[in-house]
Amino acid sequence: MNKENKNYNKKKKIDDNLKVIPLGGLGEVGRNMMLLEYKDSILIIDMGFRMPEETMPGIDYIIPDISYLLENKRYKNVVGVVITHGHYDHIGAVPYVWNRIGNPPIYAAPLAKGITMKRQDEFKDQPKLDINEIKDGSKIKLGVFEVEFFRQNHSIPDNMGLLIKTPVGNIVHTSDFKFDDFPVNEQPTDFKKLERIAKDGVHLLMCDSTGAEEPGHSLSEKDIYENMDKIFAGAKGRIIMATFSSLINRIQQAVTLSEKYNRKVGFIGHSMRSNVEVTKKLGYLKSQKGTLLKKVAEVNNLPDNQVAILCTGAQGEENAGLMKIATGEHQSISIKPGDTIVFSSSVIPGNERSVQMLKDDFIRQKANVFHYKMMDIHAGGHAQRDEIKQMISIMKPKFFMPVHGQYSMLFANARLAEDECGYKEEQTILADNGNIINITKDKAFIDKKSVSAEYIMVDGLGIGDVGEVVLRDRQMLAKDGIFVIIAVVNRKTGKVQESPDVISRGFVYLKESKDLLYQARKKVIATIEKSTTSGQVTNWTYVKDNVRNNLGDFLFQKTERRPMVLPVIIEV
Amino acid sequence: MNKENKNYNKKKKIDDNLKVIPLGGLGEVGRNMMLLEYKDSILIIDMGFRMPEETMPGIDYIIPDISYLLENKRYKNVVGVVITHGHYDHIGAVPYVWNRIGNPPIYAAPLAKGITMKRQDEFKDQPKLDINEIKDGSKIKLGVFEVEFFRQNHSIPDNMGLLIKTPVGNIVHTSDFKFDDFPVNEQPTDFKKLERIAKDGVHLLMCDSTGAEEPGHSLSEKDIYENMDKIFAGAKGRIIMATFSSLINRIQQAVTLSEKYNRKVGFIGHSMRSNVEVTKKLGYLKSQKGTLLKKVAEVNNLPDNQVAILCTGAQGEENAGLMKIATGEHQSISIKPGDTIVFSSSVIPGNERSVQMLKDDFIRQKANVFHYKMMDIHAGGHAQRDEIKQMISIMKPKFFMPVHGQYSMLFANARLAEDECGYKEEQTILADNGNIINITKDKAFIDKKSVSAEYIMVDGLGIGDVGEVVLRDRQMLAKDGIFVIIAVVNRKTGKVQESPDVISRGFVYLKESKDLLYQARKKVIATIEKSTTSGQVTNWTYVKDNVRNNLGDFLFQKTERRPMVLPVIIEV
Repeated sequence: MNKENKNYNKKKKIDDNLKVIPLGGLGEVGRNMMLLEYKDSILIIDMGFRMPEETMPGIDYIIPDISYLLENKRYKNVVGVVITHGHYDHIGAVPYVWNRIGNPPIYAAPLAKGITMKRQDEFKDQPKLDINEIKDGSKIKLGVFEVEFFRQNHSIPDNMGLLIKTPVGNIVHTSDFKFDDFPVNEQPTDFKKLERIAKDGVHLLMCDSTGAEEPGHSLSEKDIYENMDKIFAGAKGRIIMATFSSLINRIQQAVTLSEKYNRKVGFIGHSMRSNVEVTKKLGYLKSQKGTLLKKVAEVNNLPDNQVAILCTGAQGEENAGLMKIATGEHQSISIKPGDTIVFSSSVIPGNERSVQMLKDDFIRQKANVFHYKMMDIHAGGHAQRDEIKQMISIMKPKFFMPVHGQYSMLFANARLAEDECGYKEEQTILADNGNIINITKDKAFIDKKSVSAEYIMVDGLGIGDVGEVVLRDRQMLAKDGIFVIIAVVNRKTGKVQESPDVISRGFVYLKESKDLLYQARKKVIATIEKSTTSGQVTNWTYVKDNVRNNLGDFLFQKTERRPMVLPVIIEV
Repeated sequence: MNKENKNYNKKKKIDDNLKVIPLGGLGEVGRNMMLLEYKDSILIIDMGFRMPEETMPGIDYIIPDISYLLENKRYKNVVGVVITHGHYDHIGAVPYVWNRIGNPPIYAAPLAKGITMKRQDEFKDQPKLDINEIKDGSKIKLGVFEVEFFRQNHSIPDNMGLLIKTPVGNIVHTSDFKFDDFPVNEQPTDFKKLERIAKDGVHLLMCDSTGAEEPGHSLSEKDIYENMDKIFAGAKGRIIMATFSSLINRIQQAVTLSEKYNRKVGFIGHSMRSNVEVTKKLGYLKSQKGTLLKKVAEVNNLPDNQVAILCTGAQGEENAGLMKIATGEHQSISIKPGDTIVFSSSVIPGNERSVQMLKDDFIRQKANVFHYKMMDIHAGGHAQRDEIKQMISIMKPKFFMPVHGQYSMLFANARLAEDECGYKEEQTILADNGNIINITKDKAFIDKKSVSAEYIMVDGLGIGDVGEVVLRDRQMLAKDGIFVIIAVVNRKTGKVQESPDVISRGFVYLKESKDLLYQARKKVIATIEKSTTSGQVTNWTYVKDNVRNNLGDFLFQKTERRPMVLPVIIEV
């Protein structure tokens, strides 16, 4: 065989591979988006966002990097977008991505569809979405792919796992999932169905890893319900319960218990009210007539023991409902001694301190505080180690690929398959965002090349316009503030006219630093005049650099702070 | 009795009270400082700092507010400062406070003395400290107070509880403590001694609350040692262990295990090396000759399985040793596949995300990571519920006052005394920083008045000069950056000369925002000229306000960001 032929065959062979390309969700919690590419067909699974890190002040969200789809208008090959469920880490990037990749058809179950479309309405400049409704058992053909949706338990109804038939074999994507024998408002896991899904052989299992570091089995919603029932039974005053607005099942439990104990329910928080509206309209939130109050202020006309309030802010978010109640800034609800406060959510890493502050505030105001660390009043929506093992043993995939989670979670999931389910290292795929994972009929390997999978930051109306430089400036400004000095220089004499203006923010309290300012001005005048009165042509860039350095050193020496120094020189 | 007499007696009575005034450490973790005041004698217990919150960018530490001591030079009544132990949350404010309150005599055990004095040396402008050495069993008379020191187990040697004899009765202060039957390098708790302390009756017990929300008994250092032994026994490559530099006992364990497994120990991190130096010099860190390396770079000359490295940064701190190793920025140590990384510390609330990032980084580099959530390789230094109950049952105090901890911890501790030890509500004192707690022979009550107990922030050389305004500016700058616009206006014509200068940082990437800048300049020129060309005398403050508002609105409309807008107008 000559060389050309060899290459030709090699090329052909690679073209025959299925490529799995995660653009988000691997090595992080959130921002889930994955491509399956085979020849001219690209299938997209989910389109989510994630929250920014602490080192990204001012950023609203991080969304997936779609450069790969934009290159050579590759998005024209997109045959469809399948949505697993209606959580923002799976749908939140739709308003930022969808119309930039040619508005491909989207497929989602009714609740995910309702939430996605309601959110899109908040983006006035975005086109109206048209989402194709699917349900448990739906089968659709998208290019070379055939997708079957199957119900999975999670913390929101209408969560769908995916069976995807591809030319190289069947892929099962678990979506976020847990096995729950007693879920809320929906059927328990249908293991027979899962076995049927597995029947034709699973080539690749993509498995939720969020709970892969947690031993045992996740709590059932039934356990949570029973513990919450105890709290409701014992509460003499009002009950104020904070949870994620996306935990539709938890909201249902609170509504059901409120009815059991003769309480009306008020809601606080934009996302909470929005989700209640959608879920109620679509029949996913069941309540008797009169239970749900239109306005939360109505609770003030009821006896305390007939009141329940559901609100956002269980993470201690600054502008959310619970914080406003704690600080007395909410317009209609303030704490009374004897109120019962329930934090029914886990604490997202990074928010522990804010949550502690909230707890302290409530206890100071003589409320009774219940927290998930004190009793089981929150269950995550994610399979723990025993459930993952069970999923693997049902699916018996040839290849196993952990998805959804921090790298340590993906790693734990891969090791679980190897150490506890007998998988070999070459059968597990420990991948990162941007990797191109090639799947053939008998091999799985990660390309040396990868596609761009940067953090794309959303800040207000800007998408991707805040990068490293802007963020570094923000961090620097936050640390020691800014010091702007404006000198007006006479072009002819080279002398500084009058005393330079100083504008400083976040550095020192100026009124108490008169002497420092006086000396700083003197320093600046001297630095400028040394350069300008030399008789030579003045290099203003050089002068400004001198001012920046001399003044920066001076301020550091006096304060041990390094404000950003910005010199402005105006020639007149 | 006539009114004057009544008042006279009342006044006299209050003067006879012992006043307990916490200036820090109640409702927070850290910044411990407490006053006991009786007539003309003030005794100070500890002088610590705490770390800032996330909303305080650029702040180094928070120290206690000593306004009460400064008022009318009340500090002249200070009879002494007793230090319980050498952790920075108990001694860290000494360099900022001591010389402002008349350099009162300090009493501390050798290790606390050594650490405090070494730290003072780093403050070149501070006077040299002279600390009086005490030891287990020492008794000193300070004004009306008689203080006896007794050994308590914690995570650092030389930790002292206090028995303080006062005119109203005996006070026992537990210091931070736990009961440990198998501690490191020191004796287990001497319960006979504690019973002897309690013998004459305890009027008030001030009890560590840090562990009061945790059920059961704290882990013994022996358990930790055994688990660490397993890690050392199994490690084939280098062992890199990160812990708090203040956990002297943990450092000792690592050194002992390194010797057992024939490893030499290198150290990374300023505070780690500093503490090792002090503890070694004073005989608190025991090691064989040659075990401790002078420079960590020496490990590069040893086989991997003969290397252990102890470093700071287990909290994921940005500039600490572990982060530098993870990111490849450390000058002599980088990760090799097969290294074993041990996080031997709890995660301080707020740091979870950084620690997760570190873990992920190490796993990506194929290191083996052990974390306290995976096995017991860290024990806190604080009594949990069973130990607190045991302490109460030994001391049988008349009054019980939780100290040291978040408000929820103090509350849990008070409720523990009430619900599980039979104390009445009037016997427990749930206090806050700044409260004046009056203790008489038969009563304990909190004054309506309180003393100032604000956050005093240390930023570089500044103590207390960063307040609300500066912090708010820093937060604002961090969120959306700054936009400075400089317009030169001709005094005679009222026209803006040339195009206004724009300096912006942390807002948008200027090079990609030319159109926005062009429009912003136009807006500013129009706003200024509208005001200046009206023929009336120009009110420049008004003009600047107009520019700030119009430009701010314009930028928000275009970007949905709100940078700080600073207009500068120069008349020529």
